[in-house]
Amino acid sequence: MVEDPDSLQQLLTLFSAIEGAKILVHGGGRSATRLSERLGMQAQMHQGRRITDADTLEVVTMVYAGWVNKNIVARLQALHLNALGLTGADLNLIVAQKRAATPIDYGFVGDVQSVQTNVVAGLLQMGVVPVVTPITHDGHGQLLNTNADTIASELAVALASHFEVSLMFCFEKPGVLLRAHDDASAIASMDEAYFQKLQAEGVVSEGMIPKLQNGFAALHKGVHSVIIGRVEGVAESFGTKLIV
Amino acid sequence: MVEDPDSLQQLLTLFSAIEGAKILVHGGGRSATRLSERLGMQAQMHQGRRITDADTLEVVTMVYAGWVNKNIVARLQALHLNALGLTGADLNLIVAQKRAATPIDYGFVGDVQSVQTNVVAGLLQMGVVPVVTPITHDGHGQLLNTNADTIASELAVALASHFEVSLMFCFEKPGVLLRAHDDASAIASMDEAYFQKLQAEGVVSEGMIPKLQNGFAALHKGVHSVIIGRVEGVAESFGTKLIV
Repeated sequence: MVEDPDSLQQLLTLFSAIEGAKILVHGGGRSATRLSERLGMQAQMHQGRRITDADTLEVVTMVYAGWVNKNIVARLQALHLNALGLTGADLNLIVAQKRAATPIDYGFVGDVQSVQTNVVAGLLQMGVVPVVTPITHDGHGQLLNTNADTIASELAVALASHFEVSLMFCFEKPGVLLRAHDDASAIASMDEAYFQKLQAEGVVSEGMIPKLQNGFAALHKGVHSVIIGRVEGVAESFGTKLIV
Repeated sequence: MVEDPDSLQQLLTLFSAIEGAKILVHGGGRSATRLSERLGMQAQMHQGRRITDADTLEVVTMVYAGWVNKNIVARLQALHLNALGLTGADLNLIVAQKRAATPIDYGFVGDVQSVQTNVVAGLLQMGVVPVVTPITHDGHGQLLNTNADTIASELAVALASHFEVSLMFCFEKPGVLLRAHDDASAIASMDEAYFQKLQAEGVVSEGMIPKLQNGFAALHKGVHSVIIGRVEGVAESFGTKLIV
């Protein structure tokens, strides 16, 4: 979604209209895959997650934190939002731990250890709009690749003690679909029992599972609402609403 | 200098030892040239300055603001400095104007129009160490490539009203050399008349001229001291000192 200039502009215009303090978390996986291919590298995925060797870490850091992040920041500034692009290394915002190499060696992939909640809250209180890209660091100088949905829910949970937080996962569909390719089959609301049932039946796609797992975890940890859908819908609660 | 991990680590360790509020400005031109070549692009230079077409803007933004910037930030965090990576678009820090296409069309190259001095000063007062990369924006969503030496001197001049500012240009030589390849010929101090004389005689190299021009301009605009030399020297005033 962030790769096509027109869709990106639409997303940012809608984002800029959302009231209150807000954070944008973005990836850029398709651009990263394209750049990897141009450099003769093969993108390696496992269960919808990217395996990050040293060259891939360089590519995702360049694409996410460089080209995608700074274009978003410049466009949000043009929309009169005081955007600030951030990785987890900036201001020591998000420290992660390199994932153990067994059972699967994901390479330079990090699992979130800590979020500097007060720093993020302070930026929001100053009217800054953080634009966060899912590159973290281990505190010892090593950058790590982290799932964008995980970063979004970790930030939402961290801020739930300071704000009434709504967590919105935006993608190109109107919500979680019962039947792939049938937008009319979007589910209006979903609790965990229903999620387990759909997952057992193989209805929920691989890419959707981390969003749902992160979404339910966020609800349990004090996030006010979680919704999954198209960017033009979620700000007005169109999409799949998660409930506990 | 920022491209070799060992030199970079030495530079950052020396930088971290400098007392007082400080800003690091970095480019990454050699890495950008290398990536351009891997992508089958030809780096185009004119008088030591890079011509920036749309593809080159993408490359320099990825390399400078992505890979180089975030590695520096992570390494400075490991050295217990609260580093924050910034382009001119972040916090609307540095607005630039796209350079006119005549006499030479440099493409997406920006000349600095304004620096948000209070924002930079505010960050320094909070103990933040800005790591600034020379990508700016035009305020209308367009990123622009700007010379790193120019960014350094613009920041130095902007902050001269708030702080006693020392501007240090670091490169791989001990100072401005009278004879190329003879490190012992480094000039201890230089005023503008001497600079004009050396320039007329063709003694000063093309890459050095913008540093010197920016350096003298900064001195005239209130910067306390300007020194050019090796990173291991300048913090202790070894190098070429500019005087007015």
